Amino acid sequence: MTHKRLWIPGPVEVHPDVLQACAVPMITHRGKEYQKIHSGVKGKLRQLFGTEKGHVYLFTSSSTGAMEGALRNLCGRRALSCTCGNFSERWHDIALENGKEADRYGVEWGQPNRPEEIDRLLSTGKYDCLTLVSNETSTGLFNPLREISDVMKKYPDVSFAVDAVSSLAGVPINPVELGIDYLLAGTQKAFGLPPGLAVVWASDRALEKSAKVPGRGHYFDLHQFRKMDEKNETPETPVISLIHALDVQMTRMLAEGLDNRWKRHREMATTCQEWANSRFKMFPAAGCWSTTVSCIENTRKDVTVKQLYEKLLERNAVISEGYGKLKERTFRIAHMADTTVAELRELLGWIDEILKK
Amino acid sequence: MTHKRLWIPGPVEVHPDVLQACAVPMITHRGKEYQKIHSGVKGKLRQLFGTEKGHVYLFTSSSTGAMEGALRNLCGRRALSCTCGNFSERWHDIALENGKEADRYGVEWGQPNRPEEIDRLLSTGKYDCLTLVSNETSTGLFNPLREISDVMKKYPDVSFAVDAVSSLAGVPINPVELGIDYLLAGTQKAFGLPPGLAVVWASDRALEKSAKVPGRGHYFDLHQFRKMDEKNETPETPVISLIHALDVQMTRMLAEGLDNRWKRHREMATTCQEWANSRFKMFPAAGCWSTTVSCIENTRKDVTVKQLYEKLLERNAVISEGYGKLKERTFRIAHMADTTVAELRELLGWIDEILKK
Repeated sequence: MTHKRLWIPGPVEVHPDVLQACAVPMITHRGKEYQKIHSGVKGKLRQLFGTEKGHVYLFTSSSTGAMEGALRNLCGRRALSCTCGNFSERWHDIALENGKEADRYGVEWGQPNRPEEIDRLLSTGKYDCLTLVSNETSTGLFNPLREISDVMKKYPDVSFAVDAVSSLAGVPINPVELGIDYLLAGTQKAFGLPPGLAVVWASDRALEKSAKVPGRGHYFDLHQFRKMDEKNETPETPVISLIHALDVQMTRMLAEGLDNRWKRHREMATTCQEWANSRFKMFPAAGCWSTTVSCIENTRKDVTVKQLYEKLLERNAVISEGYGKLKERTFRIAHMADTTVAELRELLGWIDEILKK
Repeated sequence: MTHKRLWIPGPVEVHPDVLQACAVPMITHRGKEYQKIHSGVKGKLRQLFGTEKGHVYLFTSSSTGAMEGALRNLCGRRALSCTCGNFSERWHDIALENGKEADRYGVEWGQPNRPEEIDRLLSTGKYDCLTLVSNETSTGLFNPLREISDVMKKYPDVSFAVDAVSSLAGVPINPVELGIDYLLAGTQKAFGLPPGLAVVWASDRALEKSAKVPGRGHYFDLHQFRKMDEKNETPETPVISLIHALDVQMTRMLAEGLDNRWKRHREMATTCQEWANSRFKMFPAAGCWSTTVSCIENTRKDVTVKQLYEKLLERNAVISEGYGKLKERTFRIAHMADTTVAELRELLGWIDEILKK
């Protein structure tokens, strides 16, 4: 079957070298060779996080597993779920499904969660954990993470859990500077790997607190990871081939240089945004457009989202229709991982050709 | 680095064609191409399970995740954990870590869990869930699964959860015939895939019951899987490359023929057992030797387990030292997945050469 080039916000297109790294012969996860890979990956992830502090854990799961882990480890009393789209809403559901007390601070899809409202809600003293999606993939929105993190610093007893599923490795996120306690990401987005592996950074404070939270379970318990981390191993048999591929991809990433990587991602984002606003309209509120995925509102009468999707599919390019209730109203183009500005321009050129017809 | 051939009970050696299947370009997990792979895998797994009944789910996690899932879905009141080695003991720990009430019916390592004792314990009416490891990897023991399943049929209200992590695809296990409610396996053992994917078969009864068990969480909730199963999708982004590789490997497996596969595994087991008993001594109680992994007690004075391990490593063959407290007393040889009788004989020949020196 002809390969279709992915422009969807995960899984994204994976570089051939990284794919080949997934085909590595098996090794034991209880031996020096694995420990070396694990240690190498951790070290490179620390460069990405920009800090030697805290703990870096590899979860053999989708990002959703790491989202569940955040609540099981850090919600001892009551969580405040900041929601602004599908994935942040799911995080709230996950809290309730895990028997946690949780309230939702929700905004309309396309709007950001507001620091001042978070401040007001936390000042009630009801909460010991806050969940925030930095980059809401369903609406292409980047929340005001820095401003919210300034608010969070006023509440050191409230654990700050941040979903960076589709932003980490596409934009710089330093969890120490931002006072984050639990930062999670999936590897099938801006990391440019196949799905099946999640990366978690946890603060010392998160480890201390979670030690006192009952019912953490086993599989996502940070303390299970902590116990094996000294040996550079995971508590359970990990997804070795993806960890090996992550090592290869992190080496590629650092060879590009992180500053170059951030610059390339910013350039792709502005290219897409400028193009989108002259043909359509960016969907999220101004100032909150994601650097890794553009959610574009179809303001035109001469083409439907479905037609755009199908015409691009004829060229073996897969964009994403809008998520859920936005399906017909918006479409999404991911510009992250190994994608270049030139490739993006080519895709946008194809859409222009479709629009002319 | 020279590749070291794995004789450990997981991860096992993976066939080159299966490794290459892990390097497949990415596709979306919300589209027809993925659905076709998912549906194909499910159909082939049904042939392996020997039944069209029940539900087949793919968990993006280690087997341990699926073990946690068993308890979160099926333990509503109190679990009876049958333990006979490390992994069954861990399952008991997982119950407690998840805040479940659970009692342990433990036997000495190397001994099987006894059907009559299970009958006696269940007759108290205290339990609504029983966990049993069919093939205890740490001791190379296969529990009397058929006899225990006969007992379980007397207790239809007790959910029967079976860990077939290192047995499924190496021996026939028909969950319907055995009255199993929740059967789990990892793909890095007798399936012969890299780790990172677990397979779960669940009965209709398991689905009905779990609907009433509160606090199932999200990530391992059977009902999340059920909702997406009709579309041949998973609730979260799955480990696509391993699912694709599983499809390829299941095709290879069915091409060999399941009867041939069972026969080859039995032949490897008896070859290893006869060899072991004439040089050393099989560790588990007679009649309970595993078909997929032999745990051998080192009864000799002229060689230590460490020496054996190291001498074989010089030949790029990795066997397994004993697990935990059995580390120096036993060693383990896995004979499962794509391994042939001839390869096994060669390995045993190498050990004979080491013993002669």
